[in-house]
Amino acid sequence: MAGKGKVLLSITGFSPQRWYELLSAEREVVLEPDGPADPSIEYAVVWKQKPGLLAKLPNLKVIFSIGAGVDHLFADPNLPAAPIIRVVDENLTQHMVEYVLWRVFDHHRQGQLYRIQQTKKAWHEPQQRPASDISVGIMGLGNLGRAAAEALKGVGFHVNGWSRRPQEAAGVTTYCGDAGLVPFLNATDILVVLLPLTEATKGIISYGLLKELRRRNGLGGAVLINAGRGKLQRDADILRALDDGTLKEASLDVFEVEPLPKTSPMWNHPKVFVTPHAAATSDPTHLVPPMLEQMDAFERGEPLENVVDRAAGY
Amino acid sequence: MAGKGKVLLSITGFSPQRWYELLSAEREVVLEPDGPADPSIEYAVVWKQKPGLLAKLPNLKVIFSIGAGVDHLFADPNLPAAPIIRVVDENLTQHMVEYVLWRVFDHHRQGQLYRIQQTKKAWHEPQQRPASDISVGIMGLGNLGRAAAEALKGVGFHVNGWSRRPQEAAGVTTYCGDAGLVPFLNATDILVVLLPLTEATKGIISYGLLKELRRRNGLGGAVLINAGRGKLQRDADILRALDDGTLKEASLDVFEVEPLPKTSPMWNHPKVFVTPHAAATSDPTHLVPPMLEQMDAFERGEPLENVVDRAAGY
Repeated sequence: MAGKGKVLLSITGFSPQRWYELLSAEREVVLEPDGPADPSIEYAVVWKQKPGLLAKLPNLKVIFSIGAGVDHLFADPNLPAAPIIRVVDENLTQHMVEYVLWRVFDHHRQGQLYRIQQTKKAWHEPQQRPASDISVGIMGLGNLGRAAAEALKGVGFHVNGWSRRPQEAAGVTTYCGDAGLVPFLNATDILVVLLPLTEATKGIISYGLLKELRRRNGLGGAVLINAGRGKLQRDADILRALDDGTLKEASLDVFEVEPLPKTSPMWNHPKVFVTPHAAATSDPTHLVPPMLEQMDAFERGEPLENVVDRAAGY
Repeated sequence: MAGKGKVLLSITGFSPQRWYELLSAEREVVLEPDGPADPSIEYAVVWKQKPGLLAKLPNLKVIFSIGAGVDHLFADPNLPAAPIIRVVDENLTQHMVEYVLWRVFDHHRQGQLYRIQQTKKAWHEPQQRPASDISVGIMGLGNLGRAAAEALKGVGFHVNGWSRRPQEAAGVTTYCGDAGLVPFLNATDILVVLLPLTEATKGIISYGLLKELRRRNGLGGAVLINAGRGKLQRDADILRALDDGTLKEASLDVFEVEPLPKTSPMWNHPKVFVTPHAAATSDPTHLVPPMLEQMDAFERGEPLENVVDRAAGY
């Protein structure tokens, strides 16, 4: 490992054990820098790092985020200017696409209605539309959003996509920016949120936004699926929308406060399906090898890939 | 409608109303033959027709089955020798593929575990394998089975297929006949049954068969999904397999007796998801036009399509 830059591993909220083991196979890894400034640390691999920690490293060259989102990094007011690498991984993408297909199918095929009927021993077949009658709208057309769109299209749904900046996606009706938002919502039955969390998107999933969703297409009401970030949504607005029929059902993997407090009405709500920020887990077995490859490539003088646009925040 | 053969419509178990309306647009339709033998009736469109009814028609030329299966026809000991046309329709296939994807994803992504956790307000993320670690095995590689196999493959699962007679399906590991059954089951985590009901397949889903399924691959146990026919399975064997851990969970759309009796332990079983033979509905809006086209083509002297092999029973 001589001549290779050291790695600082700083993870809050879950165990760094496997990450440590896998990174250590090829590079020296430290969990806390020695002394106030360790010049041998050139890389940081982080999830919700301690604020100010990275600023102490005089020779930090690249920051790797462990999750698909990078908003947790910007919570540090003293975040150094080093380039930030976003995780882009087929395994993470596959998990997210599976979550989206799973939840879309369960709403589309009336899972909750059938579960209630089963408790009543009711042998009754409600009307069922084919997927082609349903428009799924994806907010956020990054790697995850585009992959989800392609998969939904592949199984027969009509797919709309919305993003801040113009994006193309094969077979998807795309909308962009403020002007495109209401037309996008007006053409969407099931809304899937895969946006990055930035100043511009914080709280965007509001009652007013949900009110614009289409609710005429055989589903019996509009559906919200959020697998992005909890702070994109306003939990209270979602509950209001569910209670007055603006929304028929919701699948939420993320919440304003996580873990979701025991006092939250989400837990008991018959129209809400809760998962514990588990749509797409960052699996170190899949994510560490490309990180180590990027460090090696960087030291050979090659350009970094998947660098975050700090002005846009994603 | 002059010169066009009349249609007898005989449906048991649900309303013939929409079928009658749509068929009547182009041909004369009768619900009961006039007198003992009506020579003007040349076609029968049936679902569980009254036994002996078809035998009375001296000039019957073609029998159309309303569902994907044709076993209901053979329950009539006096079934005439006229060719039987099986329904093959993109809409029916799409509905079935959706059902299979929906149920496979719900078991694969641990829907029942998350629903239980939600009732306990438990914020806990179990281990989650990607679809590529899971083998879905499809019994029955007809139109529906092949379409389901292709869709499952497309979303990332490994797919095995088994059929009585050798069948090919792109990207699917296929097995056939008695010799292939155990190897097929030994390589399958989630079993999807889409077989026709024949003398050879009746009761095939037995405890012994379920015992051969693989249960080592991250799902926490084998899963059964039956969207074929209820009499393919032995309800009591499935319950035994669920109760002793041979099966982890089951999604059943069909049962030995339908509607499922209120006294059946299936209704209350925490590991069983019940739907009322609703996986793929025969929608007259989609199915009547191709039937009428076949009748016209037949009268022009063109060959019939999708004719049932009466020796095989499907």
